[in-house]
Amino acid sequence: MLDEDANGPQPTFVLVRPQMGENIGAAARAMLNFGLERMRLVDPRDGWPNQKAVAMASGAGRVLDGAGVFDDLPDAIADCDYVYATTARSRELAKPVRTPERAMAEARAMRAEGKKVAVLFGPERAGLENHDVSRANAIITVPVNPDFASLNLAQSVLLTAYEYGRQTLDYDHDVMSLAKTEFATQVEVEALAKHYEERLDEVGYFFPETKAAGMKIVMRNMWTRLALTRADVQMLHGMLRQVFRKLG
Amino acid sequence: MLDEDANGPQPTFVLVRPQMGENIGAAARAMLNFGLERMRLVDPRDGWPNQKAVAMASGAGRVLDGAGVFDDLPDAIADCDYVYATTARSRELAKPVRTPERAMAEARAMRAEGKKVAVLFGPERAGLENHDVSRANAIITVPVNPDFASLNLAQSVLLTAYEYGRQTLDYDHDVMSLAKTEFATQVEVEALAKHYEERLDEVGYFFPETKAAGMKIVMRNMWTRLALTRADVQMLHGMLRQVFRKLG
Repeated sequence: MLDEDANGPQPTFVLVRPQMGENIGAAARAMLNFGLERMRLVDPRDGWPNQKAVAMASGAGRVLDGAGVFDDLPDAIADCDYVYATTARSRELAKPVRTPERAMAEARAMRAEGKKVAVLFGPERAGLENHDVSRANAIITVPVNPDFASLNLAQSVLLTAYEYGRQTLDYDHDVMSLAKTEFATQVEVEALAKHYEERLDEVGYFFPETKAAGMKIVMRNMWTRLALTRADVQMLHGMLRQVFRKLG
Repeated sequence: MLDEDANGPQPTFVLVRPQMGENIGAAARAMLNFGLERMRLVDPRDGWPNQKAVAMASGAGRVLDGAGVFDDLPDAIADCDYVYATTARSRELAKPVRTPERAMAEARAMRAEGKKVAVLFGPERAGLENHDVSRANAIITVPVNPDFASLNLAQSVLLTAYEYGRQTLDYDHDVMSLAKTEFATQVEVEALAKHYEERLDEVGYFFPETKAAGMKIVMRNMWTRLALTRADVQMLHGMLRQVFRKLG
């Protein structure tokens, strides 16, 4: 399921003037969770390399090791074909505004054409400046509660990386551990139904007699509907057997 | 876009034995970004209220103010109709495993039917215990890079809340019809599990004693997994009652 550059260049996440090393490390982790490894840094406040970033990144250190560091934004995106700027505030800019979902769908399509996509994330305190955003082709805004919008840098990176991964990586929505499950066969469920029916008949459960046939159908419907595993069936046999062994 | 309870009960996010107040506060913020306000806490390590949680939550303080605090998980989910457990590790449990995307589609459908949905999040260090997961109907696992899975508590909350917020009202017909069935509530399934456990204890089913606790978890997992309807539960009570009335 890993999403290598062999399929075209991965999107590059560009942290513009990031302040805290911890947040750079957290961003690296957020990215690598979804298979994204291409990070660039523009003028990080505390220089580079940064020990706090390394400490926070822990297992995602290789994202930092591979990160390109640039003095300014134009250099950082010089080789990119399409650039998104993430921003929380609405701006008086005539640019397309995308949800992360929509933007990452576009990014994926561009990647398939061999295009290089960058996503810009601003500094923690103030976000991207207008002159940064002016370098971008489109804007990404996470649709949040208008009464409470409070996503930090690492969270914005996380949600964007998640969207890219969600749309790109190939997985089942019902990642069923159930796929491994050994469901009971028809015959086994039938035998279970019969076991219960017989024993319950003995103790007068199906009463009154005029309703017995209907009750048996209801019960059989339950057994067949429940998607019992083989282990369930064995357990259900065992329960009833033990009750009758002890009391019967 | 605010998503009030007027549209049916919001999903409740249940933090089980959370450790750091900061993470509780961060979870509250993550939720409120996507309009979710219903939080419950089970046995928070540092007691409650917690000043560090309040400080971290800042503008999302009202999520904390409204948070219910419970001594144990069964109490916290007693009024819920359907429970998801978030977990990173794959478990040898035959329960449906959902992506956040799929789970939140289901949750929306259930909400539209007036059903109360809970999502459990485990403590920071170790995640949910098996006995916690045994109380859930299904599992949510974020599909992450298998070579680097590192989501913390607040990030898991964020991604789940984001998915809930992101989704519009179109989803699977499958999921819809599921929501129309009158499923047994958590309390009803719990009572059923208890009834069987007690009766089977009486007849020495849980043997040998060293294995009894494990056998009870297996059985509880079965009851919660089976998606029993209210009618099923009544029938299963009735069966056992009749057996003991006659033989006991």
